Amino acid sequence: MTCDLCGFVENADNSIIETKHWIVLLASDQAYLGRCYITLKRHCGDLTKIKKEEWSEFFEVIKKLEKAITKAFNPDLFNLTCLMNLAYQNNPPNPHIHWHLRPRYKNKIKFNGLTFVDPEFGHHYAREHERSMEVDQSIQNEIISRIKAI
Amino acid sequence: MTCDLCGFVENADNSIIETKHWIVLLASDQAYLGRCYITLKRHCGDLTKIKKEEWSEFFEVIKKLEKAITKAFNPDLFNLTCLMNLAYQNNPPNPHIHWHLRPRYKNKIKFNGLTFVDPEFGHHYAREHERSMEVDQSIQNEIISRIKAI
Repeated sequence: MTCDLCGFVENADNSIIETKHWIVLLASDQAYLGRCYITLKRHCGDLTKIKKEEWSEFFEVIKKLEKAITKAFNPDLFNLTCLMNLAYQNNPPNPHIHWHLRPRYKNKIKFNGLTFVDPEFGHHYAREHERSMEVDQSIQNEIISRIKAI
Repeated sequence: MTCDLCGFVENADNSIIETKHWIVLLASDQAYLGRCYITLKRHCGDLTKIKKEEWSEFFEVIKKLEKAITKAFNPDLFNLTCLMNLAYQNNPPNPHIHWHLRPRYKNKIKFNGLTFVDPEFGHHYAREHERSMEVDQSIQNEIISRIKAI
């Protein structure tokens, strides 16, 4: 079975953070400014099967990443999720561990001529809202550069 | 500032798992059978501020919990999230770290005379669906007993 995420990791050319076991890549939908994926570099589909060293390193990645996004955009809160639902649309499923990090903002924030609002702040993230702002590669690169410039 | 979760932890009398730093309690909404909260026992609102020992122990809790729920109900997948949005409806917010674990089921499952379905399996969990099955304390106790009977 092929794995899209393995290819995604292999071909990534603009990571926010890369460690021995994890790689952080920006999402193309940026309604929640700074939204990104934290993906395990090796193929493994069961969170309970990762190694202790991978788990410890994941914590260091979260800390570094939240600190960097906070310096860049000062969100009020982060939502962190591990879901992998889409993989289960295939039979057999072939999940690959990845986490979603969504910064949440009480107030609107402007960046690079765009205004980002979080109308559901204080509530669960809204997937319709999330998909309402797809940004092209050049804007993604600007966001990545800002996050990395700490 | 008072913290509802501190009180919730202190008054809990039927945990699924309790360790030095974490306590696992069943949710009253059980549309996703086995849905539960994994709560840090001490008051801390920032995930990046927890201790390494707490982080390591959290991993052991997830492993033990998923194994127990799998033996009890055999879900196909688990969705794990750390959100804490509600706390940000207050000013100032006073979050307390807790995680949501939602077992996801490809096929319907029967337990104790009730039938549980997961119509969005393969997709993001649906909060409307989640709230569609609130169960009383006696059924919660049955579910907890089944999970603990491993």
